Amino acid sequence: MSSPETGRYAYDGLDRVIHERARLGVLTSLIGHPKGLAFGDLRRLCDLTDGNLSRHLATLQEAGLVDVTKRFEGARPLTLCRITAAGKARYLEYLAVLEQVIRDAGEAAKAADDVPLHGGDLAPI
Amino acid sequence: MSSPETGRYAYDGLDRVIHERARLGVLTSLIGHPKGLAFGDLRRLCDLTDGNLSRHLATLQEAGLVDVTKRFEGARPLTLCRITAAGKARYLEYLAVLEQVIRDAGEAAKAADDVPLHGGDLAPI
Repeated sequence: MSSPETGRYAYDGLDRVIHERARLGVLTSLIGHPKGLAFGDLRRLCDLTDGNLSRHLATLQEAGLVDVTKRFEGARPLTLCRITAAGKARYLEYLAVLEQVIRDAGEAAKAADDVPLHGGDLAPI
Repeated sequence: MSSPETGRYAYDGLDRVIHERARLGVLTSLIGHPKGLAFGDLRRLCDLTDGNLSRHLATLQEAGLVDVTKRFEGARPLTLCRITAAGKARYLEYLAVLEQVIRDAGEAAKAADDVPLHGGDLAPI
């Protein structure tokens, strides 16, 4: 248990609130639109149903990553979704871990053919 | 619904079997060890409990991404976990989508300051 490699591939930084596929799409959409996206535009960009987008927005809102405001444009309701400053910071931290996964995978795939079967890999449990 | 951007951030290629955080760690560990890892080594690398690793391995095995074989080394049981050829192919497809997310995020964050608030973003729903 004291191996220096303990937790090497645990990726604790892959925040589950952000990592979920639909929410990752929502946040990636919003990061490029800091002034906000209308609910309908966001739904279309992420190809989600109204219900699914509402559910994921509620999760992101509870975590403080996204703001959702409702107002009227004349007689028509407008629901505006924005990433918060905290949301942007946490999303960028998440991205750094995602980049680490890709680096690890690249190194692993490259090294794979050279790694012989050795005792360390096959220690009995 | 006919916008060319429909589904732009849907990321359907983020296969849920692979995307789950613990399983992503398991597969990233295994991709670098094509001859297999002992259960105990894999558990340590991914910092998972026995129960969690067993559950995730079962999911990966059912999906055909991983092989788990048990044998004895003398009197001691050895559980060997390996990524399958299909698993490697699907993992590499998944990685390509992950790289797309990172490219999208980088472009979005770079462009964010230049994007004015315009009608397309704020079309009433």
